[in-house]
Amino acid sequence: MELMELAIKKLKERGVEIDDICELTYDLQLKYSSNLTKEICKEELLKVLNKREVLYAILTGMAIDKACEEGVFDKEISDIINQDDPLYGVDETLALSIVNVEGSIAYTNFGYLDKIKSGIIGKVDEEGKHSSKCTTFLDDIIGALASATASRIAHKEK
Amino acid sequence: MELMELAIKKLKERGVEIDDICELTYDLQLKYSSNLTKEICKEELLKVLNKREVLYAILTGMAIDKACEEGVFDKEISDIINQDDPLYGVDETLALSIVNVEGSIAYTNFGYLDKIKSGIIGKVDEEGKHSSKCTTFLDDIIGALASATASRIAHKEK
Amino acid sequence: MELMELAIKKLKERGVEIDDICELTYDLQLKYSSNLTKEICKEELLKVLNKREVLYAILTGMAIDKACEEGVFDKEISDIINQDDPLYGVDETLALSIVNVEGSIAYTNFGYLDKIKSGIIGKVDEEGKHSSKCTTFLDDIIGALASATASRIAHKEK
Amino acid sequence: MELMELAIKKLKERGVEIDDICELTYDLQLKYSSNLTKEICKEELLKVLNKREVLYAILTGMAIDKACEEGVFDKEISDIINQDDPLYGVDETLALSIVNVEGSIAYTNFGYLDKIKSGIIGKVDEEGKHSSKCTTFLDDIIGALASATASRIAHKEK
Repeated sequence: MELMELAIKKLKERGVEIDDICELTYDLQLKYSSNLTKEICKEELLKVLNKREVLYAILTGMAIDKACEEGVFDKEISDIINQDDPLYGVDETLALSIVNVEGSIAYTNFGYLDKIKSGIIGKVDEEGKHSSKCTTFLDDIIGALASATASRIAHKEK
Repeated sequence: MELMELAIKKLKERGVEIDDICELTYDLQLKYSSNLTKEICKEELLKVLNKREVLYAILTGMAIDKACEEGVFDKEISDIINQDDPLYGVDETLALSIVNVEGSIAYTNFGYLDKIKSGIIGKVDEEGKHSSKCTTFLDDIIGALASATASRIAHKEK
Repeated sequence: MELMELAIKKLKERGVEIDDICELTYDLQLKYSSNLTKEICKEELLKVLNKREVLYAILTGMAIDKACEEGVFDKEISDIINQDDPLYGVDETLALSIVNVEGSIAYTNFGYLDKIKSGIIGKVDEEGKHSSKCTTFLDDIIGALASATASRIAHKEK
Repeated sequence: MELMELAIKKLKERGVEIDDICELTYDLQLKYSSNLTKEICKEELLKVLNKREVLYAILTGMAIDKACEEGVFDKEISDIINQDDPLYGVDETLALSIVNVEGSIAYTNFGYLDKIKSGIIGKVDEEGKHSSKCTTFLDDIIGALASATASRIAHKEK
């Protein structure tokens, strides 16, 4: 599916490598899956990324970020999104499209990552705060991808 | 909250009156609440519309529709949204932000309205199909508002 | 997975055949997939049923129905579940575990089936109302399975 | 609503005091709401507990735990619930009924609490693991209540 390549390319343009997401999955899942390798994480992440629903959520979320950055959304809603108002929950809701497809055990990891903001999530989040970039949807998308991948690995192991 | 007036104004600009949404709620809920009036529907709809989460979802969804219409989103994702591809589920997911706040019994009505497309939902949906307008998120937003309001009334009656 | 056979056996004991669920999926999806056959519906339903998350939701929901029927739950909550109080939404929520795994486009069909109660859903629902049987979770489980299967077929076709 | 008193009584019987849950909310929300007191947390928690949907989820989840403990559910599903299999996600899904009513920003805290298992959640979780008690649904219910309350406070402050 060419949409997958497009999504990977767009993530890269925002400084997010597939390997950065695998890192998060690896850290989440290692204590449950002792034979886990980063190669396995990558393999499973690519399977998550191969789902149409997931790709649509990624591309929509990233398009919203970009539109806010470029000022093409109306100012009222743009300001709320740009500031990543902690009461704005649409970014989390949209990311649930990704989390859901691998089952409800992915919620826990998603919420946890969103809170501690480790690795690339923290980097992306900081960038949104201290530059003209808008990364409001991007950090949730990354957390959702890492969690969904961990959930896939957990279900497969058993 | 001035955001509420903004949301109502934007709905009106797209041809959606508060009364149109009340009509849907009234039809959904009449058989369960025999003393229901359209005034009650309106009163409760305004309470749903007074929630920040709901307003954020409305304004974000309508901004996406507009961005697709105006061609400011990248073509790849814009095309998918403009066609309202039946496999694109982000619009339903975003609308769940609205549905959820009044409890899970609102799901049934939301799904039902999305399927039968009665009243203003059908009108908006047709407009999206047969003009240069994009109403992909709008019809789900309307259905979600009508369902959440019906759910509020049901919970209140008891 | 032997849990799958157990789930199928338990559904059958409650009068729900795999073919009854396929019937619902077929009716939902035929207008979108002109080459659809009931064999395809069955094949895809079995794939939905092969997911651990789905099986856990089915077995838990059916265990709750049975516990209410046999009076082993406390009376206060048992009464609410037995009457299938329209404001009790836990049955819909639990069924979302099944709906979610095939993506958010399944919501629409789930809500629609829950409302019109066609085929085996209506039969099961009536049985719950006019006998000592409790089928509060069962009808939502059936609707969720039929919708998730329709969603799988839709995603596959493209 | 007398169901609320029943829910509070049942939580207490399992060793969970309203104050324990307030403690979690306080810890979650203090850094965002500098004037927060435990009294405010309690006041808002009682408002969350006053929603029918929330009470139904609490009473259903606790009834499932008890049924598994007492061996009245079939062994196959009972064993899975009793062990709190990390791949069993129905407990998280049911808790979402509680999380959802205060909006999607509650997800993050819910996932975080479920992962770090602080305070009473850790105590309840340990009890489930090292005794004949089943607390599979209980810990998620507590986390959901604490998160929904924090979300209420956050929305109110603004």
